[in-house]
Amino acid sequence: MSLNDEVELLRQVPIFANIEPAKLKLLAFTSERLTFRKGLDLCVQGDPGDAAFIIIEGEADIIIKMDNGESKTVNKIGKHQIVGEIAILCDVPRTATVRASSDVIVLRISKDLFFRLVGEFPQMAVQILRELAARLENTTTQLAKALGK
Amino acid sequence: MSLNDEVELLRQVPIFANIEPAKLKLLAFTSERLTFRKGLDLCVQGDPGDAAFIIIEGEADIIIKMDNGESKTVNKIGKHQIVGEIAILCDVPRTATVRASSDVIVLRISKDLFFRLVGEFPQMAVQILRELAARLENTTTQLAKALGK
Repeated sequence: MSLNDEVELLRQVPIFANIEPAKLKLLAFTSERLTFRKGLDLCVQGDPGDAAFIIIEGEADIIIKMDNGESKTVNKIGKHQIVGEIAILCDVPRTATVRASSDVIVLRISKDLFFRLVGEFPQMAVQILRELAARLENTTTQLAKALGK
Repeated sequence: MSLNDEVELLRQVPIFANIEPAKLKLLAFTSERLTFRKGLDLCVQGDPGDAAFIIIEGEADIIIKMDNGESKTVNKIGKHQIVGEIAILCDVPRTATVRASSDVIVLRISKDLFFRLVGEFPQMAVQILRELAARLENTTTQLAKALGK
């Protein structure tokens, strides 16, 4: 894939939509692109977290291990969404397992790069805030359902 | 309270810690300070949301209405924390009721002001990201417990 194609692709990710192309080229250079086959884990609950992932292609399940030892899929994420940023924002181990439900291509963004980007591009921070807020709303709704049974 | 006292107070709120005093003076002027007596609601689940609140003094319960109609306290917030930002970030109705569990003093930050601040001060955005991430982690843990029963 050419560098221009790569930049065009990054511009379609909402959190990068307002970043200048020159900076996106830098991002394309400094972040790592990884492929996970269907069924493989992008990250595992309890592990230390040192990076976030942007989904470029494919879908993944967000799976949590319950107190009784069973696992449950509590959410799905897909193209152009960010995942794995909780552990780097809170300095806590991974709060969930992220498992590829199809073949998945991601951009791996290290903790350092994540904080540099968010500090330099307030619009990116706002987009991630919206994403986290939406996920918190979804989780709170599920909690209300689970408690009300 | 003098303007300098007011600025000093705002500097103790983590999300404002890295904002210059001159800007904090502007914030003290443009935001509204409100008092809620113990038992009163800062906001009510289902209502439209047009502002976030910074707790200056006191504590409040985060209460959600469950599917069976009962209410449950799922979280507590206290001094220097932010609350009510989900509805303005996601453009959804209030996802929970916030009820003063003691007399509470808040700084009410309108939606417009919130986005201006976050856009202008990346460090504030990062602090709010950390706060949201911590709350998401807490809610996910509670969900895992509730589902695993």
